[in-house]
Amino acid sequence: MKTSLGAKTLATPAPAWAVGTYGPNGKANAATIAWGGICCSKPPCLAISLRSATHTHGCIMAAKAFTVNIPAQSQASLVDYFGIVSGRDADKFAKTGLTAVKSDLVNAPYIAEFPLVFECALLQVVEIGLHTQFIGEIKDAKADPAMLGPDGLVDMAKVGAVIYNPQAREYYGLGELLGTAFSMGKVHA
Amino acid sequence: MKTSLGAKTLATPAPAWAVGTYGPNGKANAATIAWGGICCSKPPCLAISLRSATHTHGCIMAAKAFTVNIPAQSQASLVDYFGIVSGRDADKFAKTGLTAVKSDLVNAPYIAEFPLVFECALLQVVEIGLHTQFIGEIKDAKADPAMLGPDGLVDMAKVGAVIYNPQAREYYGLGELLGTAFSMGKVHA
Repeated sequence: MKTSLGAKTLATPAPAWAVGTYGPNGKANAATIAWGGICCSKPPCLAISLRSATHTHGCIMAAKAFTVNIPAQSQASLVDYFGIVSGRDADKFAKTGLTAVKSDLVNAPYIAEFPLVFECALLQVVEIGLHTQFIGEIKDAKADPAMLGPDGLVDMAKVGAVIYNPQAREYYGLGELLGTAFSMGKVHA
Repeated sequence: MKTSLGAKTLATPAPAWAVGTYGPNGKANAATIAWGGICCSKPPCLAISLRSATHTHGCIMAAKAFTVNIPAQSQASLVDYFGIVSGRDADKFAKTGLTAVKSDLVNAPYIAEFPLVFECALLQVVEIGLHTQFIGEIKDAKADPAMLGPDGLVDMAKVGAVIYNPQAREYYGLGELLGTAFSMGKVHA
């Protein structure tokens, strides 16, 4: 018998991703989102949700583009900072010393020091309620070469993860390898 | 200087959630999704993406409801199994011995043995491309009382997590507590 917790957004794991945009004055900004995920394979798309009151919401509506920047586990405090302060009130790149790189593919900046970034062109805007969902088509994924494994993919053991738990508002890192997908479940077939 | 990996859905962390539905014959089914996440706070909503070819896609279109069932870390092989086999070909509840409980709130079953479940009424259908995104309004979150901490919320240290890495198609568990959200970033302010 389960206990009711009410109609709450307590699902885990949630990401902690930094969304890169240019503001109306051309200033680069980064904001944190935890409401989001991959949403389509073809075209390859990411979904991120933002309240209309946020600075980044207006930036995406105007520029029709954004980047998603995935922090290394050691960068948890940086991605948390991006979620505390509004781009209206602070130059977050100047404050953190991180580098905004202008994308060649979309009208948005990505974070040079983050290990994995996605350059996204705005594909759909879905009004849900308090949050607007922006669906961005991934034009390219770019990675820090030092984070790649011999297979040319990002090595999770090097990057780790910043996993947001909306229940207690805390971040966790990446744990042990549990097994191979589309494989370990065959024991039940 | 970053290395281009191409336009690929390699973002991490991704979830491994089991989606519960009833088929046209009333048979309970569970299918795994990794393309999804929380997408709105008010109304509280989860988004999950499915290809139109899947059994679960048709079930959601017909029943206008689904559940999202979050596995404990020890249940990684079960959630992987749900992603290997189609509900058209197997009775996955019979195979795994898991229990399908009919929701009182929506026309979908949840998994009794999974620690945290969300009962969702279909709110929006977003056609993106290969995947259709289903936005479900959370009518209730229900948890195994043994997994709750003294604050009445699910204790992540007890549940752990099943984190999907789409790059190498592998699952990871939950790691160490990194810090408190909306707090640890203040060092950069």
